[in-house]
Amino acid sequence: MDDLLLAFDFGGTKLTAALTTPGAQSWLGMRRVFSPEGADAGHDMETMIGMGRELLNGRSPTAIGVSFGGPVDYGTGTVRLSHHVPGWENTPLQARLEAEFGAPVRIDNDANTAALGEHQFGVGCGHDSLMYITVSTGVGGGWILQGKLWRGHAGMAGEIGHTAVDPSGPVCLCGKQGCVERLASGPYMAAELQSVKVAKWQGEITGKTVAELAAQGDEDARRILLRGAWALGVGIGNAANLINPQLFVLGGGVTKSGDLWWEAVRRAAHETALPEIHFDIVPAALGDDAPLWGAVAMVRDEG
Amino acid sequence: MDDLLLAFDFGGTKLTAALTTPGAQSWLGMRRVFSPEGADAGHDMETMIGMGRELLNGRSPTAIGVSFGGPVDYGTGTVRLSHHVPGWENTPLQARLEAEFGAPVRIDNDANTAALGEHQFGVGCGHDSLMYITVSTGVGGGWILQGKLWRGHAGMAGEIGHTAVDPSGPVCLCGKQGCVERLASGPYMAAELQSVKVAKWQGEITGKTVAELAAQGDEDARRILLRGAWALGVGIGNAANLINPQLFVLGGGVTKSGDLWWEAVRRAAHETALPEIHFDIVPAALGDDAPLWGAVAMVRDEG
Repeated sequence: MDDLLLAFDFGGTKLTAALTTPGAQSWLGMRRVFSPEGADAGHDMETMIGMGRELLNGRSPTAIGVSFGGPVDYGTGTVRLSHHVPGWENTPLQARLEAEFGAPVRIDNDANTAALGEHQFGVGCGHDSLMYITVSTGVGGGWILQGKLWRGHAGMAGEIGHTAVDPSGPVCLCGKQGCVERLASGPYMAAELQSVKVAKWQGEITGKTVAELAAQGDEDARRILLRGAWALGVGIGNAANLINPQLFVLGGGVTKSGDLWWEAVRRAAHETALPEIHFDIVPAALGDDAPLWGAVAMVRDEG
Repeated sequence: MDDLLLAFDFGGTKLTAALTTPGAQSWLGMRRVFSPEGADAGHDMETMIGMGRELLNGRSPTAIGVSFGGPVDYGTGTVRLSHHVPGWENTPLQARLEAEFGAPVRIDNDANTAALGEHQFGVGCGHDSLMYITVSTGVGGGWILQGKLWRGHAGMAGEIGHTAVDPSGPVCLCGKQGCVERLASGPYMAAELQSVKVAKWQGEITGKTVAELAAQGDEDARRILLRGAWALGVGIGNAANLINPQLFVLGGGVTKSGDLWWEAVRRAAHETALPEIHFDIVPAALGDDAPLWGAVAMVRDEG
């Protein structure tokens, strides 16, 4: 009988379970549900276990990889913080799932699992060094260096969203001025446009609205979108100067903002990096599945 | 007979040769000379070979490590560029020294060798990750990650001096505005002060003058020194957010600017890094010898 690898992705709004075998490039099966607003950790855990059991259909998994949408302690497999879903703090998620399924479990945050997924199964295949960056409600990243995940000394590496690029920029939730996240994330760009349009706009403005209005030639939306792209590009150029990776892989909703955005990101990044420092900036290939494939990559050698 | 390790440091103004044995923490002998202004690559090579032979006194070295004050191609052991001494471009320094001494030679740039020196013999002993930063005529750095040098995909990692921290700052030699080096390096701070003091100051102003006048309470010098310290601190905080190393080790002339400077660097760095990201910023322990010890570290396993 084949080894079975089970992957879970606990996202902020989506829960996904998927099953595969070592060496495979596709899923034997997948279950994905939206987590209802106001759901707590208990609800999400129940749902995931149920979806996992359904996929396994009575069989036992060889190993389980888990992507979690927030900071986790990789060493102990414990959730540190959960911004989106209440009740996860200090949950020993790894121990809980090991007891439930009787198989070894590895857990990491979604930026790291997405980086690993793109490196092992996506656009980063064959590269020795890359940074994966998600540009969504937040801006965060994960590093592959020397072909392996670099988590940092205390698992905190990849916080490109809180690198500072403009000391006279607006104040971020973290307290600093001009963070990449404060300028480039979807909700911040949307809030910025909302504040400009307050008198003349009725509907809700999202990050997607900013990109759509910019594409239609709206001056305010264009200015805000391009400033966000510039900030992210400077952050990427600074990261290139510091670490000199081969590749930057960008995923998340804001990366669907069109050519205007991509060109501005690339221009600012290459202007910021020294001319001798070469790199590509490319879209993620695996989309929503990147963290799941990374979860598989974490445990496929257990098989 | 003991294995003999020979180390060379081709600096911008100083040439140093030193001899030690594997496992030793001190030199069997050292020769250091100032390279006369206008000297070329040929002169420096002759001088170094002569100093090496004098130290060896007829014996053969087991291996030779070389620190070079500029970009080198680590893989081929070739000098890429030399800003300070003419004639070094594309010199196959490794092959030349291997032919001369009949021993294996390894070459790297001085930021990497200093990082390795501090990691293996200095203040970074026992640490798994650190960034060494030299703050001198230029601002550059070298990384130790997972206990080993991280040179970057094409050997260009560590360029913290050309990370951008202020888009409305002055223009750097590299063409960008607000680079760390443009604000924090000795010559740039000196030029800034010179331009302010032009009417009332007779003597030459150096980076050291800036620190001395700032310590005496001169307002202009203080403002320029603190702005440089702030820029370096933001660069360090950004690097901490991206990579989460344990330690930043600072060497070079500007780091002798006193408590005012150190406090401002540390404050800006910790304000820029997320509160969960912890690190220390400490002075280099080996001073001018850091690159030499790093050169030894590169080759001691050849012995």
